[in-house]
Amino acid sequence: MAKSEDTRQTLDALFHPRSIALIGATNNLGKWGGIIMANAIGNGFKGKLFPVNSRDEQIMGIRAYRKVTEIPDPVDLACIVTPAETVPALVLDCARKQIRTVLVISSNFAETGPEGQKRQDALLSVARDAGVRLVGPNSMGIFSSTRSLVLLMALVEPLKGDISFVSQSGNIGGQMLEWGKRLKTGFRHFVSSGNEADLSCRDYVEYFGRDDRCRAVMIYLESLKHPGGWMETAREVARRKPVVVFKGGKTEAGQKAARSHSGALAGVVPIFDASFRQAGLIQARTTEAFIDCARSLSRLPLPSGNRVGIITRGGGWGVVTTDACEEMGLEVPALQPKTLEALDRILPPYWSRGNPVDLVAATDIRIYLDCMEILMKDPSVDGVIALSALPGRVMSFLSRPALKERLGLDDARVRAYEASAEKAGREVLEGIVHLMRTLGKPVVLVGMYPTSGAFETLIEKEGLNLYPTPERAVRVMARLMEYGRYRRRLEAREAAWI
Amino acid sequence: MAKSEDTRQTLDALFHPRSIALIGATNNLGKWGGIIMANAIGNGFKGKLFPVNSRDEQIMGIRAYRKVTEIPDPVDLACIVTPAETVPALVLDCARKQIRTVLVISSNFAETGPEGQKRQDALLSVARDAGVRLVGPNSMGIFSSTRSLVLLMALVEPLKGDISFVSQSGNIGGQMLEWGKRLKTGFRHFVSSGNEADLSCRDYVEYFGRDDRCRAVMIYLESLKHPGGWMETAREVARRKPVVVFKGGKTEAGQKAARSHSGALAGVVPIFDASFRQAGLIQARTTEAFIDCARSLSRLPLPSGNRVGIITRGGGWGVVTTDACEEMGLEVPALQPKTLEALDRILPPYWSRGNPVDLVAATDIRIYLDCMEILMKDPSVDGVIALSALPGRVMSFLSRPALKERLGLDDARVRAYEASAEKAGREVLEGIVHLMRTLGKPVVLVGMYPTSGAFETLIEKEGLNLYPTPERAVRVMARLMEYGRYRRRLEAREAAWI
Repeated sequence: MAKSEDTRQTLDALFHPRSIALIGATNNLGKWGGIIMANAIGNGFKGKLFPVNSRDEQIMGIRAYRKVTEIPDPVDLACIVTPAETVPALVLDCARKQIRTVLVISSNFAETGPEGQKRQDALLSVARDAGVRLVGPNSMGIFSSTRSLVLLMALVEPLKGDISFVSQSGNIGGQMLEWGKRLKTGFRHFVSSGNEADLSCRDYVEYFGRDDRCRAVMIYLESLKHPGGWMETAREVARRKPVVVFKGGKTEAGQKAARSHSGALAGVVPIFDASFRQAGLIQARTTEAFIDCARSLSRLPLPSGNRVGIITRGGGWGVVTTDACEEMGLEVPALQPKTLEALDRILPPYWSRGNPVDLVAATDIRIYLDCMEILMKDPSVDGVIALSALPGRVMSFLSRPALKERLGLDDARVRAYEASAEKAGREVLEGIVHLMRTLGKPVVLVGMYPTSGAFETLIEKEGLNLYPTPERAVRVMARLMEYGRYRRRLEAREAAWI
Repeated sequence: MAKSEDTRQTLDALFHPRSIALIGATNNLGKWGGIIMANAIGNGFKGKLFPVNSRDEQIMGIRAYRKVTEIPDPVDLACIVTPAETVPALVLDCARKQIRTVLVISSNFAETGPEGQKRQDALLSVARDAGVRLVGPNSMGIFSSTRSLVLLMALVEPLKGDISFVSQSGNIGGQMLEWGKRLKTGFRHFVSSGNEADLSCRDYVEYFGRDDRCRAVMIYLESLKHPGGWMETAREVARRKPVVVFKGGKTEAGQKAARSHSGALAGVVPIFDASFRQAGLIQARTTEAFIDCARSLSRLPLPSGNRVGIITRGGGWGVVTTDACEEMGLEVPALQPKTLEALDRILPPYWSRGNPVDLVAATDIRIYLDCMEILMKDPSVDGVIALSALPGRVMSFLSRPALKERLGLDDARVRAYEASAEKAGREVLEGIVHLMRTLGKPVVLVGMYPTSGAFETLIEKEGLNLYPTPERAVRVMARLMEYGRYRRRLEAREAAWI
């Protein structure tokens, strides 16, 4: 079997296993084997779970086996959480049981120094001879939405979605899954690649590239054994879907820190920003931008230029957003005369007649959507940043005990008002989703994160992108425009070849 | 009376009024006069409130007057919320009533064009002749912690604290008060300076400078009539306390947007970054950094150098934090041999023996504080960034229905665990506060925002600075170090003169 076909089958078993042996499972929640077991059960793994443990007959109510070879059913994937020195023999057991894919959580390999490197080399050699492929060692684990599978050391309940993510740091990976949850952004697959003794970052990226259900790829990168090959693969994937990269160890001090915590080789050829750009990869500069960019690129339509329309309910925010656009190389164009005329019919006579469109403290939220539509239809505008799109919570504020009586507000009136404000807000958001679909232009929203479940659901289901600061929204828009430009250039080049 | 003495008395009346006439107050919550009235009542103004309204006898249960001159008691401050054309006559009424300080919320003055400019000039001339000082017009209002006074168009309940803030944009001002609340950061005084027909940004900054209870000044700046004079005042204040400036209209497009929304004059002399720096002002580059920097500078000890110690519970975050330090010009120094030896006694043998100090997945939170103390005592370290300082919520995760039964967890055990985790977490935070005080070095924390009220209180009361991303914490540390450097330079210069 060709190596690439073997890798594909291995990763199918990793991300879509029907049955898993968890070697080192325990009832003790103070141990990783207990945490991972609880994670797998608690997140509702859709498949069979076989705890393997030399002492207990049951782990968390599930029948346990003393050895992997004693499991009567076929097993697609083994996960090992035992001390380093025990791992090679357990890998041999796996081979005997016809398990060809083994996820090694166990640490104390190359990341701890020369002794560990020797242990890792020996492990790899055992695995190769036995025909077993390894994830890790020193992996933090994996997540797969297709099997509702959380085999992780971190206690997270990731949302299911369409971003696939390989991370050369376990704790950054776990944090991104958690942030994704807070941003209502889900993942399709996640793997903490650990020391990459066998399967490497490149293999995972290639797999994600071929997976049609994956709509964006995230990569946290610290070091590469073969940067050239990796870059070739990443470039190939970026032709079809957005690839967002965060590079850890960008500075000399950072590289030093990276070498001391992972099994990374010293003297790795550095990859420069320019080569990322050339390959069409989106480089995130901060961890926050990392998840933001993947989130928006996986969901929003790509703009066909870099001209931003801004809609705001206050002058100052409009100024700040305009500055941020200019500073990130985006244009805030003049609007077409027809657009201004259409807005004249809605807004008070003293409105600013320009971009940003300032709604001048208009209190009716419905005006917002009307202006939005006019702005989005302007041919000079490629994408819109929409500030304060969500309605405020006026009534709940005013219904505090100190005021309620004085204002003569009763609960029914407060509830009725809140319901009507929520309805109006939902109409605006649904309207924005509809406009994005029909016009194919992205909208990035700015506002305080909603406390209402209805808005949250709309954000999750429709992929609306809402950020608390204008600068964060502008950065997202800049990356959408960057990737849109790359795709247009690719298409133009391909058209020229035909 | 000298003008500066007059200004001081005016601002005393503005920020510490014993009695207020609210001209244009109404029971209608759909109008600004209703919102502001509700805000003043709802936030518990400690003084007398006199609604002035030509129709109703009572506003929100408080006796109203038809004219300000009919109020029997003395009035320190008037606030006008009526249409622009009615304002001059009302200002004359105020003068008759011996009210010398008038806050003009009413808009439709210079910000709407030449006609509005004429109205504003006429208003100013009436006020000058009558001996009345004006805040605004087109102000969004004020907040004063000393009187629990919220005279604002925005529905916010700002926290009380020690930051004083003047904003040339009302909506940016209101947003910062709201963000402050979420960050557990309070304000002493806030004023939206509006069109600055009379009192200007410079006057407010000077006042904040002389107020010993104000520990940091925030300024949102769009344009200045007399940049030189303003700069002189700001520089003087920055010698004594941190002054954080956000400049709106940094770019040409942003300037254009600013001109169209405020009464700002075109062709104002631009103020450059270099002159901010020279004057010791801290310039925030993003709105998020604006509040973050004021928050940290008002509370944390100033570092005496730019060397950062990093403590982390995962390698990847350490790498990212190190990169961010380097990129912002901060040093991540090697630790002293004595520090490494002390850490050797606590951490497992394979720990990375360097800075960042990686606690290598140590699960006991108490180790955290011990390592923290050792790191902070290292003479090579001027300040510490502490990642994942708060305990996770392991038990509440494991006690979800799907797991609880399988794991044999009962409510009592979960509660006991949570209580003990919270206690351990509180000990760590209290320990950090103690170390900051005794060693005089700042600590900036990185972690998910706590859901526990106990942690929140500790953060608010002790001024602990917690941020969700390492980059945000590093930016705050960089600004602390920048201002610390400025103060040391000043002191050195003064010492040389003696």
